[in-house]
Amino acid sequence: MGRVTARRRVLRVREGGASYRPDTLAAEEPMEIRVGGRPLTVTMRTPGDDFDLAAGFLVSEGVVHAAGDVAGIRYCAGATSDGGNTYNVVDVVLAPGVTAPDASLERNFYTTSSCGLCGKASLDAVRTTAAWSVAEDPLRIGTEVLTALPDRLRAAQRVFDSTGGLHAAGLFSSEGELLCLREDVGRHNAVDKVVGHALRSGLLPLRETVLMVSGRASFELVQKAVMAGIPMLAAVSAPSSLAVDLAAESGLTLIGFLRGTSMNVYCGDERLETVPVA
Amino acid sequence: MGRVTARRRVLRVREGGASYRPDTLAAEEPMEIRVGGRPLTVTMRTPGDDFDLAAGFLVSEGVVHAAGDVAGIRYCAGATSDGGNTYNVVDVVLAPGVTAPDASLERNFYTTSSCGLCGKASLDAVRTTAAWSVAEDPLRIGTEVLTALPDRLRAAQRVFDSTGGLHAAGLFSSEGELLCLREDVGRHNAVDKVVGHALRSGLLPLRETVLMVSGRASFELVQKAVMAGIPMLAAVSAPSSLAVDLAAESGLTLIGFLRGTSMNVYCGDERLETVPVA
Repeated sequence: MGRVTARRRVLRVREGGASYRPDTLAAEEPMEIRVGGRPLTVTMRTPGDDFDLAAGFLVSEGVVHAAGDVAGIRYCAGATSDGGNTYNVVDVVLAPGVTAPDASLERNFYTTSSCGLCGKASLDAVRTTAAWSVAEDPLRIGTEVLTALPDRLRAAQRVFDSTGGLHAAGLFSSEGELLCLREDVGRHNAVDKVVGHALRSGLLPLRETVLMVSGRASFELVQKAVMAGIPMLAAVSAPSSLAVDLAAESGLTLIGFLRGTSMNVYCGDERLETVPVA
Repeated sequence: MGRVTARRRVLRVREGGASYRPDTLAAEEPMEIRVGGRPLTVTMRTPGDDFDLAAGFLVSEGVVHAAGDVAGIRYCAGATSDGGNTYNVVDVVLAPGVTAPDASLERNFYTTSSCGLCGKASLDAVRTTAAWSVAEDPLRIGTEVLTALPDRLRAAQRVFDSTGGLHAAGLFSSEGELLCLREDVGRHNAVDKVVGHALRSGLLPLRETVLMVSGRASFELVQKAVMAGIPMLAAVSAPSSLAVDLAAESGLTLIGFLRGTSMNVYCGDERLETVPVA
């Protein structure tokens, strides 16, 4: 596709002067996800790995759990008046017997009519939708393996250094081996692409793995990890309160501020080896 | 409300040891925005300035343009089975004559049935929805004023230093005076809170102002600036390709990588003073 980056002219202002020069930017385009021809959602994403993004989104929403749940994924042609293909509309055909999501799925995921909208309802929604539990996952990992992950993630990022505009999500084994890396202007999209790739490769649930993200850890990123069966989420920056609450309730190990030789473990620290606690 | 931050116990791992201690996190809770009692969207946000958030969201979507377009905003009680109030459901009552948004507004904003889904359609959607133009805005600003903004934004952030988990959006005058600051776990929410506050104060369009954000500049942040009549958006980090395209088409000045004495001006550089171009 060749649209992961785009070139634009920029005026670079530095101490004492300025000059025009070409600059490389992260590409951003809207993508509509359809299920069985019916529009479900639109996300602003970096083009590339679009089928993984669509599949991963449906994992996160609890619609599909295995490669066999998806009968096919394709770009919709004929979206433009001249019958052309923008490669921005992706249709997922579900296998027979798989229930299509409600069109208002995004909203329903967070609310239940019986108890109103609150953090607790959001946690309940994930618990009732998840196909498997991460609480009993036997993952054990050394802190020296964890502290090596940020550098490995950065080293593997093809696009970040040239644009500074992409979030990264990397899936690692318990030995610190990089299994899959995806980048996107949207933090959620990068994770969906990793999860969708795993689904389509028949690898769900992703037991004994670590998901590392370049930014912060929100409720929705913890949700995506839980729905994919990933027992540990590590972030370079801070988690939110609801991210910690969902991780604790789900039995996921949540790590924040993973930088240098330091980290904060917000819950599930029994999975860390070699930590003498004072 | 007192829910901007939350306390959780964390295991701090540092070179050679670890210890449990209390930690302060950015609070995150779902909030549903209703218009005239009808659910429109759910966003994960940091509680506080919720009415500004709801109002600003409706400005961004082109539903309201002036304080008088909103007849009232309130929390919905009775959302829980015991009749309690979670303070997570906000209902906006529009003034007579103001057209309520379509329930599928979020999707419709990016797509038109005639031309398919693409970046160009996204730009067109903003142009046809905006109530005013920023192209003719007479703002002129010195680079020394701009380079002072990041430190002012950081100094004014009440919560960031204690949690590291919040995005900030600050509205500045052309002299660099901070007019309004809002923080949120969601970058879009921080901007919506600034814009909603301005709407409710009767200040739209926000002519001759600069919006500064702590992170990256996406298409949606440029869209929100344009819809509020803000002629300049400055970001600490990188813009996306579609952000630059929308800024250029709208006549908005877009600045990225505003750090120290440096910045990249992606379009609209005629608004910058004191820049000798080599």
